[in-house]
Formats: sequence, structure tokens, C-alpha cells
Amino acid sequence: MSVFDKAIDLQPDGDGRFRGSTVPEWANMVGPFGGITAAALVRAIQLHPECHGDPIAVTVNYVAPIADGDFDVETKLVRTNRSNQHWIVEQHQSGEVKTTATAVFGVRRDTWADAELAPPPALDPDGLAQAESPLTWFSNYDIRYVDGAVPTIEGTASASSTTTLWVRHNPPRPLDFAALTAVGDIFYPRVFRRRGQFLPAGTVTLTIYFHASGDEITAAGADYVLGTARAHQFTRGYFDQTAHLWSRGGTPLATSHQYVYFKG
Amino acid sequence: MSVFDKAIDLQPDGDGRFRGSTVPEWANMVGPFGGITAAALVRAIQLHPECHGDPIAVTVNYVAPIADGDFDVETKLVRTNRSNQHWIVEQHQSGEVKTTATAVFGVRRDTWADAELAPPPALDPDGLAQAESPLTWFSNYDIRYVDGAVPTIEGTASASSTTTLWVRHNPPRPLDFAALTAVGDIFYPRVFRRRGQFLPAGTVTLTIYFHASGDEITAAGADYVLGTARAHQFTRGYFDQTAHLWSRGGTPLATSHQYVYFKG
Repeated sequence: MSVFDKAIDLQPDGDGRFRGSTVPEWANMVGPFGGITAAALVRAIQLHPECHGDPIAVTVNYVAPIADGDFDVETKLVRTNRSNQHWIVEQHQSGEVKTTATAVFGVRRDTWADAELAPPPALDPDGLAQAESPLTWFSNYDIRYVDGAVPTIEGTASASSTTTLWVRHNPPRPLDFAALTAVGDIFYPRVFRRRGQFLPAGTVTLTIYFHASGDEITAAGADYVLGTARAHQFTRGYFDQTAHLWSRGGTPLATSHQYVYFKG
Repeated sequence: MSVFDKAIDLQPDGDGRFRGSTVPEWANMVGPFGGITAAALVRAIQLHPECHGDPIAVTVNYVAPIADGDFDVETKLVRTNRSNQHWIVEQHQSGEVKTTATAVFGVRRDTWADAELAPPPALDPDGLAQAESPLTWFSNYDIRYVDGAVPTIEGTASASSTTTLWVRHNPPRPLDFAALTAVGDIFYPRVFRRRGQFLPAGTVTLTIYFHASGDEITAAGADYVLGTARAHQFTRGYFDQTAHLWSRGGTPLATSHQYVYFKG
């Protein structure tokens, strides 16, 4: 079982409850990488016997730091409509809420479609260096920066918050909705890029809109995903961060938005 | 009491519950304008005796159509941290969940700040025509399109989904967090603009990040707010829509994101 699959491996515990455990390989500065927590919550809904369809939109709120060890995920099916389903999810440890989420799942159907936003120009990943990081979870991915790599300690401020990168699992693992959820949180905090330095920062809320169907995600395989992220406003201890993700072939996969707390 | 304040007028009903009623002046195609529902949920949290600080991020999920008449709002304080608070909210009618929300509230403090995204160029609202619409709720606002007005019946398709507009309450009413929440949903569905026609469409989830402090919102007064909105991807019955809002003086107020269901 891959280190990703271990982290989202949940055991049913009755009544929409699931049991999981943190995996040391996903450690971030404090607790696990936020993307892997989001992926586990999405997986919990997928494991629910009444789950119908695929993820359409998910919002994950990071309430309190997750400790190493076991956690419970409580999924509540709010309502099933003709074409979609609404969920509320809570992740608990020792009786305390650590994460909350709401999700819309549904069955998609063919309509008029248009990719109004095109993928940014990017050199082929094979010609780019694999990025390194002291963060434990980072080595579960093969990340290749096209533009806007993590600033070095002596980095300089940038007028642009944009980073563009290629990412795939390391070792390669086929993409699915849970894996795509985690990739929605792959970009380091934009304030690092603007200020050219590391600062205390943490996502308080993450929203992902899934554009791709299950078939399109399967077609993306274990190949690199292209992503580009930027911020719009930094103000009074918070900034926003938006990322767009495409398959290597150019299929729009997802858009993610987050609001991030920072000091400095 | 203004028609806006009537719609968010809630009576405490014990244990974090509040009672409200739909107001006919806010009628949309089906049920009330989504923005006024979001505003009522934000107001419910603000009325909770344990509410601390101002809205930082709110996600509202439109679960089922709201009928004319009374509704209950159930607010649950998930956790109060040093600098923020997490909430889960449900709106009920006759025992059925109609809307869910999560919210982060908090106290902001001065940090490094930068408006990376500048307001778009816009003619002065006084020189622009006030827009009209057959939708009941629309006349509670004075909306002046700078670019990308609602297509007419014989409208033509557009390669761009962008609309830029000025908006204030009609009659004028000072901005506050609840009113700003509603303005986060002020833009008509972007698929109308792209296709040059009305189509069945409805927001399934709306997320708002509040950039402004209470003081900045007070300073915006009853004057026009400038907004610009666009979509990025239209695919299989859904599209995304992002809006950025500024005070007339150019202060960033909020960013909103929504995922919208459509047919056609």
C-alpha cells in the first residue's frame, strides 16, 4: 500500500463513522500536510454506503492541530437531491473537533463546456529539476517548479505571488479524487513568495471545485499534473490563494481556493 | 427597518437557534436571492452570545429550495482558538435542512499587507445607467454595469465571462458584514454572459473571504461597491465563478467564489 493510500485508509465504525490514523511520512511543520487531511475526509464520504456520485465541491476548515495518532471521521448525509448530495463532515481526536468540512457530491452530465482559462505555458517536466524541501511530506511528491520556487533563506521579495509547477506522486500513483484533493493544497503559502522568506502561516479554510469527471481523472493516470497558484489580497494577518490544476494533456482538473493565516 | 434588515431580522430561540422569515421583496426565480440567505446565516453567528470577532471566511451550501415563510437557523460553535473561531450553521424549514454553512470568525491584527490585485478600470457610477431586471430582489440594489451587463433575449455569445459593476443598496444603506456577504452573490450566472442567453442555473456552494476590517467596511458607508466577476471552467453541468469586491475608494473588501449548476 502506498504512503498516500495508508494515510487515507479508513475503517468503518458504524453510523457514518470511520477510523483512521496519521502517518508519519505526511508530517508538516505542525500536524500532517493539510492536503492529506482533506483527502481523508473526501475518502470517508466515498466509503459511506449512501454516497452517490463523485466530488463536485468540498470545503475543509482546519480547526485545530491534528496530533499524531488515531482520528475519527464522522460523515453526515444532509440530503440527496436528484443530481447532487450534500454532506457535513467532522474529524475528531479525543473528543475534540480538529477539522470540519462540507461537500457536494453528484452525478455529472454532458452540457455545453468551455475551458475559459487555458493552462499557463510550461517547460516539459522531464527537463526540470525535482524540488527538495526539509518538510517530511514533500518527498511523497515529485514537484518540479516551472516558475516561483520556494524562496531560499536569502531569497528576495517578489512583486508576483505566482508559482507554476508540475506535481505527481513519488513514487508515481494514479490520480483519483482523493489524490486530486490533496494536490489542491500543494502550493506553499504565497506570502513566502511575495516576501522572499518563510513566515508562520497556516490554511484556515480550503475549497476545491472539481471540474474533471472520474474518467478524465483516470485518464490523467500517474503522470504529472500542472498547477498555477497566486494570491489576490494580503491584509491584516490573512491572504487568499487560488490554484488551477490541469492534467498533462491540458484537461481542467480542479480549482482550489484557500484563506491563509500568517504572521509578519 | 430596511428591506435588507427585515430579511436578516432573527429572533433568538435558545441554544444557538434563531428564527427568521423570508421576505417577499427578496424573491428570486426559486426561493429568495442566495445572497440574502447567506447574509442571514452570517447575522445568526453575529447574534450568538459567544461570537468573537468578525467574519473571516464563510462557505454557504444551497441544499434545497427555501419556501416562503419561517425558517430556523441553528448555529454551532465548533471551537474558539486564540485568534479565530469555527462555526457550523444549518438553516431548517419544517424539519428539513435547506442550507448549510461553515464560518471562520476572528480578530484581525496589523501585518504586512499588499493589494496584489488592483480594482479594474471603471467609469464613475454617476454616469452609468441603473440596471433593470424582472427579478424581484434586483430592485433592492442600485446596480450599474461597467461591462458585461445581463444579455438581452436576443443577446449574443461572448468569449469573455467577465462582468464589472457598481452596486449599492436601493435605497442606500451603510455596508456591514451581512450586507457585504449578500453582495458576494450579486453577479448573475456567468454562463448567461458566455452564451448570451438565460439558462437554468443555481449556485450550489458559495465561499466568501473577507479582506476588510469592520472599520474599513464602515468607511465604505452607503456608497457604491465595485465588483468584477469571471468564470474559469464550464464543464459537465457546472462552472466556477470568482468575484472581487472593492469600496469606491479602492479598499479590497472581499473575494467570493461559487460553483454553479447549469443546464444547456
